[in-house]
Amino acid sequence: MPAKYRLTYFNSRGRGEVIRLIFKVADEEFEDRRMTAEDWSSIKSETPFGQVPMLEVDGKVLAQSNTICRYLAREFGLAGKDVFEQARVDMFVDLVEDLLRPMVQILYEKDEIRKEEIKEKYAKETAPTILSQFEKHLAKNPSGFLVGDSLTWADLHFMNWLEKNWVGGKLPVETWNRFPKIKEHNKMVASLPRVKEWLETRPKTEL
Amino acid sequence: MPAKYRLTYFNSRGRGEVIRLIFKVADEEFEDRRMTAEDWSSIKSETPFGQVPMLEVDGKVLAQSNTICRYLAREFGLAGKDVFEQARVDMFVDLVEDLLRPMVQILYEKDEIRKEEIKEKYAKETAPTILSQFEKHLAKNPSGFLVGDSLTWADLHFMNWLEKNWVGGKLPVETWNRFPKIKEHNKMVASLPRVKEWLETRPKTEL
Repeated sequence: MPAKYRLTYFNSRGRGEVIRLIFKVADEEFEDRRMTAEDWSSIKSETPFGQVPMLEVDGKVLAQSNTICRYLAREFGLAGKDVFEQARVDMFVDLVEDLLRPMVQILYEKDEIRKEEIKEKYAKETAPTILSQFEKHLAKNPSGFLVGDSLTWADLHFMNWLEKNWVGGKLPVETWNRFPKIKEHNKMVASLPRVKEWLETRPKTEL
Repeated sequence: MPAKYRLTYFNSRGRGEVIRLIFKVADEEFEDRRMTAEDWSSIKSETPFGQVPMLEVDGKVLAQSNTICRYLAREFGLAGKDVFEQARVDMFVDLVEDLLRPMVQILYEKDEIRKEEIKEKYAKETAPTILSQFEKHLAKNPSGFLVGDSLTWADLHFMNWLEKNWVGGKLPVETWNRFPKIKEHNKMVASLPRVKEWLETRPKTEL
């Protein structure tokens, strides 16, 4: 019997979306349980850490979005072909996290002047430094993927977090123009038939 | 032939120490290359992302500390017994990261008043909330380890980052007294013969 999967998250993309993308790309059935804020107070105590996303696999539970992604990617053959390739996939995922972490700081900063300063530093320095590493690696891989010669969850993770609402919208067009390989990569991943179908049909949410 | 490993990092514990602990616990040979600040400018361009730690395995390279830890832990049998257990290990590692991330914010905050505010919130709210999750899980596992019935790199990661210079020193004794299982866990891990030996003989550095 195939495993029975249930993903619990809010009705938003956020930390749940790469998990959903992995299910869609692997063409695997899952229950996409989207909570309201009211549901959350009762569901919270059922989760391993008082956090979502939560994945249930035949009744066993996992927390933490990247943990869930990695687990499913390994189950569905999207994690890399051997242990070393899997480590290379992890390494790019962690580099995406380096790109996301300062963004959270921007999001939570209440002082408007400081917010602008952090934003500027992010757009001019932090993000381009990290993005140039991605550009360099993509330029060296003729397949166009981040690792090896086929799609892994690192590609989905990278494409997902570079969207307009996250990293994408934080940098001016001139900066993006310095990264043609990244643009090509994101476009290629977004146009893979199963990815494309999900991007077009998924529930429309703000974040 | 056994693999030849070289770890490159600064002469500090920091993001290199859990990697070293994994080598020591597995009783595996590695070159513990500790750079000076001057070395760094020339070594930087050799690293995958312009970052350390860097691990070389028979000439192949990996970046990102948790990626390196996970890779070595899988090679040395410290990552969990099957794919699901490995995911549970990852999940606890990610929860330690939730504990560390706000600490970086404290470290970099230049405004003294704000620094004190963040510190207080961390000690009273953020850290205890996360630590109570660890306490809960440890109370449920009779082995005393975080996952399954033997040591994994999640235990090493947790013990390492709870030391005095990091999370340990940020909370008052009264708070720690609420977490007897965590104290027991850390003591038990630190007293495992190979861990103990490394803790006693490792180079003394500030961080």
